[in-house]
Formats: sequence, C-alpha cells, structure tokens
Amino acid sequence: MYAIGERINGMFKSVGAAIRGGNPEPIQELARRQLAAGANYLDVNVGPAAAEPVAAMEWLVKAIREVTDAPLAIDATKPEVMRKGLELAGPGSVINSTKGQQEQLDIFIPMAVEFGAKLIALTIDENGIPRDANGRCEIALRVVASAMEKGLEPSQVMIDAVILPVNVTQTTPGQVLEAIRSVKLLSDPPPMTVLGLSNVSQSTQQRPLINRTYLAMALAAGLDAAIVDVLDSDLMDAMITAELLMNRAVYCDDFLKAYRSR
Amino acid sequence: MYAIGERINGMFKSVGAAIRGGNPEPIQELARRQLAAGANYLDVNVGPAAAEPVAAMEWLVKAIREVTDAPLAIDATKPEVMRKGLELAGPGSVINSTKGQQEQLDIFIPMAVEFGAKLIALTIDENGIPRDANGRCEIALRVVASAMEKGLEPSQVMIDAVILPVNVTQTTPGQVLEAIRSVKLLSDPPPMTVLGLSNVSQSTQQRPLINRTYLAMALAAGLDAAIVDVLDSDLMDAMITAELLMNRAVYCDDFLKAYRSR
Repeated sequence: MYAIGERINGMFKSVGAAIRGGNPEPIQELARRQLAAGANYLDVNVGPAAAEPVAAMEWLVKAIREVTDAPLAIDATKPEVMRKGLELAGPGSVINSTKGQQEQLDIFIPMAVEFGAKLIALTIDENGIPRDANGRCEIALRVVASAMEKGLEPSQVMIDAVILPVNVTQTTPGQVLEAIRSVKLLSDPPPMTVLGLSNVSQSTQQRPLINRTYLAMALAAGLDAAIVDVLDSDLMDAMITAELLMNRAVYCDDFLKAYRSR
Repeated sequence: MYAIGERINGMFKSVGAAIRGGNPEPIQELARRQLAAGANYLDVNVGPAAAEPVAAMEWLVKAIREVTDAPLAIDATKPEVMRKGLELAGPGSVINSTKGQQEQLDIFIPMAVEFGAKLIALTIDENGIPRDANGRCEIALRVVASAMEKGLEPSQVMIDAVILPVNVTQTTPGQVLEAIRSVKLLSDPPPMTVLGLSNVSQSTQQRPLINRTYLAMALAAGLDAAIVDVLDSDLMDAMITAELLMNRAVYCDDFLKAYRSR
C-alpha cells in the first residue's frame, strides 16, 4: 500500500505558521520524519488560509525539495495552485484531487497527462457525495472512461470513494468498502483506490483506534493507497500487518521492522 | 459479533492443572473474568491430555455452572465427551466442532437438534483443509444441505472456514475472507460464520497485533462470531470498533464502554 503522509498541511497550526513566517525548518523536519516513518508520498497543502496560494505552494514545494526527492501529492483545489506544485515537484507526483464533474475532469486529466502524474478523483459530482456504493461506482466509471478518452491510463487514476465520519453516517464505512471492491473490477488493469482515511474518525473520541481499524478493513477490500498520519506508529503497524495478511508483503518474523527498513 | 472466550482449555497450563487437581477456583475465575470482558459464550475444552475426558468434561461444566448460566461452547472431538458437556450445559450451547465428512455430520447434526445447540462445522473433510475459498464453500454447502435435511436451521450452523498460521501459508487469510463472504450467500437466512482466530498468528512474534488486525478484516467480510482471547483488551477494542464501522452497533462517543456494559 502507498502511504501518503498527510502532515504537511497548512491546516495544522505549526505548518500554517511556518508558511506564513517563511520558515522552512518545521516543514523539512516533517518531510524527513514522515519519510523515515514509511511515507511513500508526501501530501503538500498550503491550507485554506493562505493569502497567495500559488506563491505559498511554490515556497512549500521548494522547501521540501531542499531535503528530499520523494514524490509529492499536490493537494489543492485551484488549478493554478496545482500546476505550480506539479511544475516544481517533478514527474511521478500525485494530483490531489479532482471531483467527478466533467468540467473538473477536463482540467485535471490533461494536467495529469502533461505532468506524468497520478490523479486522485473523489467520487463527488454536481449532486454531492452519493449515499451508497453504486453511486460512488457510477462516478468512478465516468472518471475512468474520461481518463481513457484523454490518454490517461486507468492505473494512473486513484479513485477516492470518500469516507465520511462514522459519527455522522454509520452506513458509509460499509458502503465505501463495497465501492472499493467494485472499483477494482471496473477495468483491467483496474484503477487504483485511495482514501483520505482520517475523515472516518473526525470529531470522535477514539480517532487512532477508528482509523487503524478501518484501514485494515479497507486494505482487505482492496485499498491501494491512503492519505494518513504516518507518524502514528500503531496505524502503520496495522497497515503493515494487513499487507502481510493479504499477501502483499512477504512474511518474516520481524516483518514490522523489515517493512519499515525497505 | 459473538465473542467465544477461549481460555477454559486444558491446553493452558493452569487450567490443565486445575482439572487434574480437581480445583474449581481457577476455572471459575476465568469464567467470571471472560464474561466481564465481554464473552458471549465460554469455550470449554478439557485439553488433549485428560485421561478420562468424559469425567473431566462433567467436572468442568459443573464447576462453571456453579458460577454462571452463560451459554457454553463445548469443545471436543469425541461424541461421548460432547454429549456429556451438552447434557450438563443446557440449551443454547454450541457444539465445537464437527468436520465436514458425512459420518461426522451424521453424528453431530442430530446432536445439535436434540440439544437445541448451534453447530460449528469446520471446512475440513476426508481430503483435509481445502487450499482456497471455493473448496471451503463446497464443504460449507454440503454441511448446510445436510443440516436442512436433518432439521437443523442454517442459522444454527456456524461455518468455520479454518484459518491457518500466516507464517505457514500467506494466501490463506485472503482466501478465508473470500470464503466468509461467499458462505453468507449460501442460503437465506444464511449460516453463521465463525473463526478460531488465534490460529492465524500461531508461532509468530506479533500475535496480538496479527489477531486484532485480522479480526477487523474478517468482521468486515461478514464474520459473525470468533473464538478469541476476550481478556486481550486491545483485541476487544478492535472488535467493538469494527462492529461500529460495519453499523452493527450504534455509535455513541463512549462506544467502547457502552458496548462492554451492555
């Protein structure tokens, strides 16, 4: 599974302050720590409060590139912010994210092709977030068809079936698992699947427990990637163990350490 | 999910010694502690070394019945030991277990009907343990058909798809999940599904982590019951959280405590 480290996000106080103050060190430290903890990608989000988001993204990616060449997931909604991030991050990046409306796909799919990037597509469209697995799959199918039309391989598309907080809707976690299983059958080779995991536990009192339990369930359903707090070592232990149990990593007695050191 | 507490088993040193010494207190203490920790059933196994297993089962069930009326899972292979346990445990017990061979089903299915007991059937037959999900489902289908023929409702049958240690065969955990999903489609109402969970981690160095991760995955696949160490509170937390995420228990902020106190 690809672990996309979620911590470089202006929503976090210390990151927001570092961006506003032009202080790269806390950012670079987060980059290093997340990679050491097993992140395959680093999510990069200037946060909702950035006054000049294009300039902030430029500064942020440059700060990270001073310490690592690891692939980045550029996390932005505005196309011009996304483009700036992709230009500076280089090939192998992830676009995080587009929604399923055609006008958004018409912008972000060509951008993924142009930059050799993977594209996270949320199963949300003009009608909002579907209530069930079928609605999510319909949007996923539209995204994959549109990607193929525009020359983006399905394997470069990462469908995010949009998990909601379990304390808001208790039917959604099960529906999302079903959607993940179905999305893996949409094409051959299939699109990838991804989740912004921590949303499942938003405003609950047991966030780490809910996160890691749901991650194991989703991984068993076929989840390929997750945007997570890789610094939560219990979460990473659950992820590594779930990978092992699904035969996606080779067993050895010291599998936790082996996985982390690979 | 039904949690079947696994600790009253002569294989454990202290339990074996209590049985041999005719000392009921350690047994009764284990009964009380497992029920307090959330066990719905108590497994009762005299262990492989009992010289007179019928007498040992009689003593063991009587000792437990002095402190609780909780339903028991009588865990034995010999029909005469099973019968003695069921006679003393009373209705609502579980037969743990039969294999899928016809000659075993011919003994244990009528016994389940006679005693109003649920019947755990392992997906093992004269050819051993099947390699994949399909082989497991074939045996499960034979068991369910045979149960219906003999007047035992499918909902009284608990199919155990036989998990093996992940360090012995790494494909089995995934195959067992698939078998659980398929077994739930065998009849309407479907048979129940159960696992002897801790076998998945046998001889590994991360037993609790592997157990609780796999339990969450299996619960998401539709597992109805598990024979587990209910005294492992991390395991029970994972189980309760997985139930919540699959909408099998109602969310409240203090859901861990609420579940345990119900």
